[in-house]
Amino acid sequence: MDCSDSIAFPRRLAALQEGMERAGLDLILLFDRANVRYFTGFRLNRVISSILAIPRDRDPVYLVAQLDLERAKRDCWIERIVPFPEDTPNYLSALAPLFNDKVRKVGMERDVITLAQADYIRELVGPGCELVDVRPLTTRLRAVKSPEEIELIRRAAEIADRAMGEVIDHLRPGASEAELSALAECRMLREGVEGVSFEPFLMSGENGWLPQRISSRKLLQPGELALLDMGAVYDGYCSDLTRTFAVGEVDAEKRRIFRIAYAAQQAAIAAIKPGIRACDVDAVAREMIAAEGLGEYFPHLTGHGVGLSTHEPPILDRDVEMVLEPGMVVTVEPGIYLPGVGAARVEDMVLVTPTGHEVLTATPRELV
Amino acid sequence: MDCSDSIAFPRRLAALQEGMERAGLDLILLFDRANVRYFTGFRLNRVISSILAIPRDRDPVYLVAQLDLERAKRDCWIERIVPFPEDTPNYLSALAPLFNDKVRKVGMERDVITLAQADYIRELVGPGCELVDVRPLTTRLRAVKSPEEIELIRRAAEIADRAMGEVIDHLRPGASEAELSALAECRMLREGVEGVSFEPFLMSGENGWLPQRISSRKLLQPGELALLDMGAVYDGYCSDLTRTFAVGEVDAEKRRIFRIAYAAQQAAIAAIKPGIRACDVDAVAREMIAAEGLGEYFPHLTGHGVGLSTHEPPILDRDVEMVLEPGMVVTVEPGIYLPGVGAARVEDMVLVTPTGHEVLTATPRELV
Repeated sequence: MDCSDSIAFPRRLAALQEGMERAGLDLILLFDRANVRYFTGFRLNRVISSILAIPRDRDPVYLVAQLDLERAKRDCWIERIVPFPEDTPNYLSALAPLFNDKVRKVGMERDVITLAQADYIRELVGPGCELVDVRPLTTRLRAVKSPEEIELIRRAAEIADRAMGEVIDHLRPGASEAELSALAECRMLREGVEGVSFEPFLMSGENGWLPQRISSRKLLQPGELALLDMGAVYDGYCSDLTRTFAVGEVDAEKRRIFRIAYAAQQAAIAAIKPGIRACDVDAVAREMIAAEGLGEYFPHLTGHGVGLSTHEPPILDRDVEMVLEPGMVVTVEPGIYLPGVGAARVEDMVLVTPTGHEVLTATPRELV
Repeated sequence: MDCSDSIAFPRRLAALQEGMERAGLDLILLFDRANVRYFTGFRLNRVISSILAIPRDRDPVYLVAQLDLERAKRDCWIERIVPFPEDTPNYLSALAPLFNDKVRKVGMERDVITLAQADYIRELVGPGCELVDVRPLTTRLRAVKSPEEIELIRRAAEIADRAMGEVIDHLRPGASEAELSALAECRMLREGVEGVSFEPFLMSGENGWLPQRISSRKLLQPGELALLDMGAVYDGYCSDLTRTFAVGEVDAEKRRIFRIAYAAQQAAIAAIKPGIRACDVDAVAREMIAAEGLGEYFPHLTGHGVGLSTHEPPILDRDVEMVLEPGMVVTVEPGIYLPGVGAARVEDMVLVTPTGHEVLTATPRELV
């Protein structure tokens, strides 16, 4: 998705500008990497920042590090590109020309902008400055994916499937957690992805039910449950996939918690269709696990949206009333972490379709 | 470095508490991942947050996500560990018990804490709240590495060397930038690292001088310069290494900019010893490149500290007066990006020793 040959980006920006008008914002400053990429289409190294500024009545300005200027000019559709110096505390001074007497109400991401950045912006605006959270506007735009976005998410999901298959092929007692998750990561990298969508983790035995959420040097032991959670970033879009494995033969209690976690996941997926609320999908999984007396061992959300971010709305959890719509993509991943026994979780990516849903990840789900 | 079997962490915390006393802070809240790890020794998945709270006259409190609680209790030396709920906007409510009438002056990282977090803390403190940047205190502690830290940095550097060697072995016209940087990344992962210290990038031809700072699908062409910048994270500690390659035969102008960049790097390294200011090391490289008429094509810093973060003080750049001390570890990496010609940069990691310096990375530096 080269941003120069697409009309998607200007259209997205126009939609944001409409919301900006309704919210009475004088200026929007986007710092969040995924938000900036959504509107600019411009890929940056993950350690490098940029800022997209959208004044009310003027063209957008894209602020990039001095070193990224020439590439942004070559590759990005936005016409006004302004450099800022890197590695200096006053890099935000490049923002100053965007401010004038009429700028009072500034939209930005309250969960991303730092205190140092916020204080600097407050100083630029002066008395009467109002910093307003712009997340509601961007979330609404990003939650429903376009056909082009869904295509990229499918590719990311397929790559995760192939990496999971490679780990399944190499699963054996005596392999280390780190070795197997590195295998998954390397397979994804060899497929030409931008990177992993998060630090993958394979956790086995006690590390599973704690849960550990990192891959350690621990070796897999016969009779343990092991769980791998991972995903890729393909042209900016993320995948997220979990499977649970039996290392050698596992006992009946381990098979039981797997069976319950898997059944709860399948039931929650079956409930996904346009019009259902996120909390209602969550309730399906949560109630099934609770009915087996294991409710307290399912301590997290049922799922989350996935796109340019690995975790984004809609969050499938208690109290989340957001209504699912066609084009949304969510994970479904209820889990059970039973001390002394093990951890079991099956996670798939699910697209909401006009008539129901489609599961985007395909690795076999049964305990292997 | 398992934090349970070490006295390093309590000692570091005691040093911070001394600084806290001098600065008159009532409470310190650390959100920065590297800072938290420095004092807790606790490894978390890179996508997961935690907070270390240090009240003035009481024991420290480590706030971790509910899911990380049991593992933190097992693995972390800190006694008071408090869980917070994940994926909810009000996760900071776990901080509330730390506040009382006497807490007014709160130290935190202004460049990391978000506006949402800062506003929540201001509300907890109430009128008279003062949020003070705690970076000067933590920077001072972290800039000089202990022998144990230097050992881990050496390991991270050795792993980067081996990954660079593997790329050199596979360098050939027709290979893609992404394929070769994936090769480096996979090699590091197979060595059991926690991950890469930043998104590695191999940039060739025009992508080099722009510069691109990401690995694309572009194929290497005979006659181009190519440059790979990458590093590993070993037990929390980062490495950072760059080499420049000739793809097939390259012309005299490309060889010339390489020779100048390499000579400037060697001269800057030679200047490193206790007592020299960061800006003076920078000046050595900058003046050599300027003397060749290429000053405007060296648009970044000469180097930076490296440790639990890939980029940390001391920054070797203009105007940085920080004085180098034994135990500091810095990169030295002046570069030349000449439009129409290519990019050349050699980067090594250098330890400041009592008598001078020691170069920690060892991959051959000549153009291959």
